[in-house]
Amino acid sequence: MFGARCLLRALRSCTSAPCPRHKPSARLSVRDALGARSTNGERVKVQGWIRSVRSQKEVLFLHINDGSSLESLQVVADSSFDSRELAFGSSVEVQGQLVKSPSKKQNVELKAEKIEIVGNCDAKDSGFVHIHTPIITSNDCEGAGELFQVEPSSKIKVPEENFFNVPAFLTVSGQLHLEVMSGAFTQVFTFGPTFRAENSQSRRHLAEFYMVEAEISFVESLQDLMQVMEGLFKTATMMVLSNCTEDVELCHKFIAPGQKDRLEHMLKNNFLIISYTEAVEILKKASQNFTFTPEWGVDLHTEHEKYLVKHCGNIPVFVINYPLALKPFYMRDNEDGPQHTVAAVDLLVPGVGELFGGSLREERYHFLEQRLARSGLTEAYQWYLDLRRFGSVPHGGFGMGFERYLQCILGIDNIKDVIPFPRFTHSCVL
Amino acid sequence: MFGARCLLRALRSCTSAPCPRHKPSARLSVRDALGARSTNGERVKVQGWIRSVRSQKEVLFLHINDGSSLESLQVVADSSFDSRELAFGSSVEVQGQLVKSPSKKQNVELKAEKIEIVGNCDAKDSGFVHIHTPIITSNDCEGAGELFQVEPSSKIKVPEENFFNVPAFLTVSGQLHLEVMSGAFTQVFTFGPTFRAENSQSRRHLAEFYMVEAEISFVESLQDLMQVMEGLFKTATMMVLSNCTEDVELCHKFIAPGQKDRLEHMLKNNFLIISYTEAVEILKKASQNFTFTPEWGVDLHTEHEKYLVKHCGNIPVFVINYPLALKPFYMRDNEDGPQHTVAAVDLLVPGVGELFGGSLREERYHFLEQRLARSGLTEAYQWYLDLRRFGSVPHGGFGMGFERYLQCILGIDNIKDVIPFPRFTHSCVL
Repeated sequence: MFGARCLLRALRSCTSAPCPRHKPSARLSVRDALGARSTNGERVKVQGWIRSVRSQKEVLFLHINDGSSLESLQVVADSSFDSRELAFGSSVEVQGQLVKSPSKKQNVELKAEKIEIVGNCDAKDSGFVHIHTPIITSNDCEGAGELFQVEPSSKIKVPEENFFNVPAFLTVSGQLHLEVMSGAFTQVFTFGPTFRAENSQSRRHLAEFYMVEAEISFVESLQDLMQVMEGLFKTATMMVLSNCTEDVELCHKFIAPGQKDRLEHMLKNNFLIISYTEAVEILKKASQNFTFTPEWGVDLHTEHEKYLVKHCGNIPVFVINYPLALKPFYMRDNEDGPQHTVAAVDLLVPGVGELFGGSLREERYHFLEQRLARSGLTEAYQWYLDLRRFGSVPHGGFGMGFERYLQCILGIDNIKDVIPFPRFTHSCVL
Repeated sequence: MFGARCLLRALRSCTSAPCPRHKPSARLSVRDALGARSTNGERVKVQGWIRSVRSQKEVLFLHINDGSSLESLQVVADSSFDSRELAFGSSVEVQGQLVKSPSKKQNVELKAEKIEIVGNCDAKDSGFVHIHTPIITSNDCEGAGELFQVEPSSKIKVPEENFFNVPAFLTVSGQLHLEVMSGAFTQVFTFGPTFRAENSQSRRHLAEFYMVEAEISFVESLQDLMQVMEGLFKTATMMVLSNCTEDVELCHKFIAPGQKDRLEHMLKNNFLIISYTEAVEILKKASQNFTFTPEWGVDLHTEHEKYLVKHCGNIPVFVINYPLALKPFYMRDNEDGPQHTVAAVDLLVPGVGELFGGSLREERYHFLEQRLARSGLTEAYQWYLDLRRFGSVPHGGFGMGFERYLQCILGIDNIKDVIPFPRFTHSCVL
């Protein structure tokens, strides 16, 4: 539905190279430029990213955004500027005159005299390859046990054997299959339905939901992963805002007043990073009474996630380095002594809580072998272990719940309202 | 995977308006232009569709294809031409000089002196809306019974009740859900996994496969539907050929020699149309001995489909108007007397057989009510009947098997070779 295309374009054009961070050296922010009262030709400089390019015969229209405002600044340039270099996603510094716009869509526009490319954005060279990971699988990626099993319907079932010879389930994540493919394509992603047989009626769970999942070879730190995650969130959101303006405004106006400001706040700030250990300390010091007492070694609950985001000033926050005992076998051992954590990362966002989950993967054969043996999974995951036997590389990846993402940017309270045919316990309508 | 993006772009930019047919008025076909021996500046005229646009500061490169060749002709224009109008998919007439190309990629190129837009291609105004139709459903769209049933795995199963309160299955088609959405968005499509619990080891069946499905409101004839189907096949193929040239060439060179010519043959000819009744007559007259004797009222088998395509000179052929008794309840009654057919259409293609299936849908309340009653489905499909009670419109749609499409254009014999993780009876590896 709406948003999905933008999200995929954002991921395809995402690079795993460090995203440029905002620097406060811009003479005028986009917000200030848009709010300028005197527009009698004063010379200004604006820095930001190109959000759209429209090329006409003698004139080029760019929309520039720097995160200071949801609205972009229109830049008007003559055809002498090279429209090939001025591509979506490139960062630029524009100098020119701030003038009254002849269009009713905006009050002011920037008449460009000089446009400098700060960072090129060539989506072709650094894109992710889209993989169709299977829906039916004989794996249980999360080890969580909340699986749907698949068998031919009773009408045609041959009871004494499985259709696939082995028990088959609906996928809970495409990660393991992506790991296979990242060994050939380096950077891969999938976007498709995933399933959990959770007996939940909460406003953020579905039995069938969409995930964007990415897997990146040659990634050696959570920092690199987090940059891709933050980049994906921000770029996708910018694209949704510029391509689906009316739909977003409808939600922000009638469903979630104040959401526009909350979203601007998320976009213009760098996401925060705290460790799981720090998170537990923050929760322990909280004046709030929790239903579940926060304790090191126990998973965070929704109430904890919400408190942490609020504590962080309603800026999205990465929580990293969780206890090994809480996480699946494939997450990379931090070898950090008695606490024993893994290089896992969750991104918590206002209103929703956990939006992304990711980790570095255990790429070291002997570490993985021992973890599998301890879980009694060695035989089932021999093929996965083999990926570490032949040409293993440090790698990592993440998944983002697509419906929760829509909840987060649109301010929709119940997840069942962002998908046309929601499936949850006791309900499979149509 | 590769191809999917092109296919989706093709569908998004597809219009349900009649596609322009090739007219033999071009002075020089692309094939002839590419094969020209003397390139000493002779003036020529080429007509075709724009397959790519690359805009540089002082020069504009277009690739023009008219279906006479898999390769496109490079047109070089100076920057005085309006690159905004020269968009992907627009039909153009280019006049200019055929000259030797300085690039090694082609021998000749056309130096444009005049470019006339024959038909604009504005993808934004006429696109299809992408809908995520659900995977888990309580419907059986095809009524075929070859369904996978879904239940929480035995570990957590509560045996006395269904997780969703009703029996739930893996979707065999998103059609019925698309019909709901086409009542709001007019033109919609879905692209996702579908499932059949068929006990088949054939080289063209999978238990999990991808389908592109489209549904179009206000369509009143199979002709209109077939134009969209043919347009989708040809446009998507052109896009795959121009965007994934190396991958396609690899297949054509090492796996399916001769496939390039076969594909050119499909692209440059208008697809044929025969009725089911004509098809049965052709099969009855055939000198070939079939395992299944062709007979009116009986479904076509693979061997029949193959014969028909061969009989039609290896040009894709639409077979229309099938017996009502062979088809599901939602297909539109042709009211054609004792034979009693429905407005169904299958597209048969060389090497694969059935690639598309579609139909006009029964939009008349009383006709549909009777069909449902006769099948004992009235209660289960009350919601579907309601779509005809409130604001019903003539509409129709189709589905295309994505893996079979790849088989068809790449010349891959076994469907299991065009998907990374194939699922079929007795096999669910990884």
